[in-house]
Amino acid sequence: MNDSIDSSLLLSLSHFPKDNLDEREIAAFRSAAQRCRGWILTMTTAANSGHPAGSMSSIEMYLMSYAVSDVRRDNVESIERDFIVISHGHTAPAAYSTLAYLGFFDPSMLLGNFRRTGSPFQGHVERSVWGIDWASGNLGQGLAAGVGYALAQRKRQSDGHVFVLMGDGEQTKGQVAEARRIAFKEALNNITALIDFNRIQISGKVHEVMPANYKKLWEADGWQVYECDGHDPADMYSVMKKAYEDEKPSVVFCNTVMGKGVSFMENIPDYHGKALSKEEYLKAMAELGEDPSLLEEALAARKGPLPKGRTVNPRTPKIYTGLPFSYPPDAKVDNRTAFGKALADIGRLNRERSSTPILVFDCDLASSVKVDEFAKECPEWFVEAGIQEHATATVAGAASCGGAMSVWADFGVFGLTEVYNQQRLNDINRTNLKLFLTHVGLDVGEDGMTHQCIDYVGLLRNLFGWKLIVPADPNQTDRVTRWALQQEGNICVAMGRSRLPVLTRKDGLTPFYADDYAFNYGKIDIVRHGHDMSIFAMGHMVHRALKVGEILAKRGISLCVYSVSCPLALEEDVLVEAAKRGPIFTYEDHNVNSGLGREITSKLQALNLSAKVRSFGVSRYGDSGSSDEVFEAMGLAPEEVAEAVCCSLRK
Amino acid sequence: MNDSIDSSLLLSLSHFPKDNLDEREIAAFRSAAQRCRGWILTMTTAANSGHPAGSMSSIEMYLMSYAVSDVRRDNVESIERDFIVISHGHTAPAAYSTLAYLGFFDPSMLLGNFRRTGSPFQGHVERSVWGIDWASGNLGQGLAAGVGYALAQRKRQSDGHVFVLMGDGEQTKGQVAEARRIAFKEALNNITALIDFNRIQISGKVHEVMPANYKKLWEADGWQVYECDGHDPADMYSVMKKAYEDEKPSVVFCNTVMGKGVSFMENIPDYHGKALSKEEYLKAMAELGEDPSLLEEALAARKGPLPKGRTVNPRTPKIYTGLPFSYPPDAKVDNRTAFGKALADIGRLNRERSSTPILVFDCDLASSVKVDEFAKECPEWFVEAGIQEHATATVAGAASCGGAMSVWADFGVFGLTEVYNQQRLNDINRTNLKLFLTHVGLDVGEDGMTHQCIDYVGLLRNLFGWKLIVPADPNQTDRVTRWALQQEGNICVAMGRSRLPVLTRKDGLTPFYADDYAFNYGKIDIVRHGHDMSIFAMGHMVHRALKVGEILAKRGISLCVYSVSCPLALEEDVLVEAAKRGPIFTYEDHNVNSGLGREITSKLQALNLSAKVRSFGVSRYGDSGSSDEVFEAMGLAPEEVAEAVCCSLRK
Repeated sequence: MNDSIDSSLLLSLSHFPKDNLDEREIAAFRSAAQRCRGWILTMTTAANSGHPAGSMSSIEMYLMSYAVSDVRRDNVESIERDFIVISHGHTAPAAYSTLAYLGFFDPSMLLGNFRRTGSPFQGHVERSVWGIDWASGNLGQGLAAGVGYALAQRKRQSDGHVFVLMGDGEQTKGQVAEARRIAFKEALNNITALIDFNRIQISGKVHEVMPANYKKLWEADGWQVYECDGHDPADMYSVMKKAYEDEKPSVVFCNTVMGKGVSFMENIPDYHGKALSKEEYLKAMAELGEDPSLLEEALAARKGPLPKGRTVNPRTPKIYTGLPFSYPPDAKVDNRTAFGKALADIGRLNRERSSTPILVFDCDLASSVKVDEFAKECPEWFVEAGIQEHATATVAGAASCGGAMSVWADFGVFGLTEVYNQQRLNDINRTNLKLFLTHVGLDVGEDGMTHQCIDYVGLLRNLFGWKLIVPADPNQTDRVTRWALQQEGNICVAMGRSRLPVLTRKDGLTPFYADDYAFNYGKIDIVRHGHDMSIFAMGHMVHRALKVGEILAKRGISLCVYSVSCPLALEEDVLVEAAKRGPIFTYEDHNVNSGLGREITSKLQALNLSAKVRSFGVSRYGDSGSSDEVFEAMGLAPEEVAEAVCCSLRK
Repeated sequence: MNDSIDSSLLLSLSHFPKDNLDEREIAAFRSAAQRCRGWILTMTTAANSGHPAGSMSSIEMYLMSYAVSDVRRDNVESIERDFIVISHGHTAPAAYSTLAYLGFFDPSMLLGNFRRTGSPFQGHVERSVWGIDWASGNLGQGLAAGVGYALAQRKRQSDGHVFVLMGDGEQTKGQVAEARRIAFKEALNNITALIDFNRIQISGKVHEVMPANYKKLWEADGWQVYECDGHDPADMYSVMKKAYEDEKPSVVFCNTVMGKGVSFMENIPDYHGKALSKEEYLKAMAELGEDPSLLEEALAARKGPLPKGRTVNPRTPKIYTGLPFSYPPDAKVDNRTAFGKALADIGRLNRERSSTPILVFDCDLASSVKVDEFAKECPEWFVEAGIQEHATATVAGAASCGGAMSVWADFGVFGLTEVYNQQRLNDINRTNLKLFLTHVGLDVGEDGMTHQCIDYVGLLRNLFGWKLIVPADPNQTDRVTRWALQQEGNICVAMGRSRLPVLTRKDGLTPFYADDYAFNYGKIDIVRHGHDMSIFAMGHMVHRALKVGEILAKRGISLCVYSVSCPLALEEDVLVEAAKRGPIFTYEDHNVNSGLGREITSKLQALNLSAKVRSFGVSRYGDSGSSDEVFEAMGLAPEEVAEAVCCSLRK
């Protein structure tokens, strides 16, 4: 089915080598678009699902973007190239057709395997397909991903360019505007957005579904606005060339026709998400002059062997993380300060020695989340993104795929609770984001219930890839910070707000997490030995658990105190040991229904261990007051927990 | 401390009775503002935390909004009034001072109880304070809440007006733009937004932190833009009057000075979130000419009895929900269609008989989520909000507080996963939203992993107020839909996409959920009796569980099949019974780490029941294919589960 394909003319257009297309090139585009339209209809009809009409309207946009970029089959694993981000992921048939046409894989691999279980060609684009740089499905996120890639290129002093392909319906998503502003503020002239302006979305005409003056909005946010005929390769090429060379971030509105190329599909919203019937297919292929026998081939291939997709690994650049800093037993430092100090230290080290930019993102809370020292040390790597958390989450995630080390520090409620779905998409995209949350749990000062992040364990528990670390003191925080920046993948480090004593051994003199201590993901630490019963706590709650132990000791009860720094990856041996010992208590300032207590009981159950377990945690939205008082009001002061432990033993 | 307070002149300005303020009124405002500034400083210094500077810049905005509205102490429980929504919730000291000044409560109740554990006067405004219509803390949500109130007023034919008070830093949040567009589309001329334009946010000047052309953006979205001197009552009054009377939704930029009134605080970002020291306080009070002895009084009150706040109950209007519709055993209908049919039925009924508008919100998926029939029947109650889920969640939530019945139907990933935090704030605000999610679990058709909502149980588990219902067939869906619209509070109903057989009793002829069946929140139903072991499933998985039972029956194993429609409220007796019976299996197309299996094991543990439990569920992001194939690829086909059950018995 690819006998007549010659994509060399298209591939020769990388980085706009000429001002205008000549007749042969125009013809080559037209013929490519025609062929791809046939493939779009073939794969959707073979799958009996998918989004043909938007794919038909945006096919020239796809062909042109891949042609003028330098994204090629042989450089997809490299970061020394342009990037192409697809925001309207449901136009996957157009994306896949373009990639097949340009030699990323054989068309025969594609047509029978669209939306087929086990195939890399999912209904919305995924990075498991060569040439796809960002998975999308939820609309409105692509521009932020493109800005992330462009920012990484800029900070790496790469001269690569980013093209972002968008739909028109998604222009109303708030995150799009946030991303525009970050691009403008960072003066990214290496990004071009393209909008498939077919004026139709599922529910009808875009200006009727939700009126908005798109062009005015892009202009208001500082972008240069261009317009072209989205089905005329010559016009599109010359306008895109101008946009590419523009000193501002720029957007090209491509005027298109939904369902373009097939008379009975054009401008009919119904074909947005509906495949053609076989009868319609034959009629459409005849109109296009394309070969209708492809459908039988595709249907046959659908029963054949499954193609394998690309394996995407998170990209972990080499970062110098320096030597740990040890806080003495008499220090009283908050974990976020220990994080900020370690981060600034790492910044200094790498500024001199590393080619990898460490991008630290902030949403107007630098001094609270302690990235201000880093900002002073490495101003060129510090990205102030303003109060725009949704775009920031995606920008930071994508920048980590574009060759930067991405660090985002924010309050727990903003960096995770508010942008949970962005972090889910980062997980699906296998980004390499290091997320440092401060002010988690009830330990937020007096800000009150809206600011208490009591769901971070429960939220990340839903995601398959994220690692979560909750350090217990400044020494552990220092080591965890350095460790996280050396690891692959998405890692969240959660910290409270208050100053904490340095955890020591029983002698009160030897810091627990200093000197030869090395962080080990998943390891549970015994902070105090005991033989009657066990308590598991995480983060700043370990200090309160120690107090519980002291109170119980006075009553002749010996409590073993465990520090769980990795609640989503519990060490089994420790649980076996604790279950043998006696009753188990868990102690957290997280929602008790979705936090450490749940993790421990589930794990015990999975290990078939029977033990009496009681969980102490947050059971309602909290008060606004000093941390100690808020804990007390919630029944979580060490004295109350110790009392409850005694009571539950008597039962 | 309130001897000299006479707020009668201010209170006489409700609904702009005159064109301009006279000298006495201007003087009354100036004196009120001065007094409130003193209180702002007193309460923050007494609490040793809080946000004084933004409170000082926005105090005139607060006083004027409450003065010209008809929100008074004696009508806060009514909906026949204006509403005031505060978006920059950290300026709570200004809000509380205004309310105290205007007689909502005694100032002596306030000054010693700001940010005090157990007090209603939280660090960010909460509805537990009389006169506060919306709790906010996360920035950028207030405009959407205001739009929700204004929309409810409009649809109720009320002539009330909504004032929304906002900060300038939050103008960059994407949700603000989404809310603007909904207001414009719905032609809401009963909303006035006021921006405290002091040009400073935590990290510095707003145009440096994140440059944006605010006015151009509001204009582009169709709002009328006004400007006034935010510290000049006369100017503010006459401009606000124009805005109030404008035929368009309108915004007033109030030019203000951060920290206004105290020379050393003005324009200093540091005072954004820092209380004055006692020394600074004395200096400031002297400048203001206010009584510094208030501080000692406040500090003394801080040790006194706690004030009680207002109890906020969700407002449940009377809705006629008609008679249930029963699907016969041979029907094969998807739950979302049963929902849509019941909803349209309810729409028809109430359109004729009820004064309460049933607002049904859609984000460009009406035909997929089956609200299209309702839209045809009750076009004036149907709100097409476009692809703007964040604002929609908040608009719908607030509209339910403003006297409408709010229903939002959307795909699971959009209506919950994407807007989890908005649903958290709806919970905190005790809204009365009925959220109907379709396409949950792996049952989303071929859309692939980004569209699979496999976290809805895990997400709602984090929130204390939400109820979750997962109906098992069209008959139960019909009854659940009617039930939900009669209940108080936030309720989520989760449905898959596929057509389902009608659940029947063992005879295959009698529908299980028809005739005399009435939905009972929390009840677990035995769909098939069995005596060897038990399986718990929810929603469309019940049908697959029945298949597992049939396979096992052929092997001589008798399986008891339970339908759990309320995974967050498990009936204890049933678990006791199941634990006695033998091994327990759970079966879900939800993330196995955060769904039904977790709920069951936690509950068993809490009840001290020991039973062998094995959970079948989703353990990775899913494939893109037909539901049955996707289940099979995930190891969740009934045949595989039956086989695994047998294996685990042999062990």
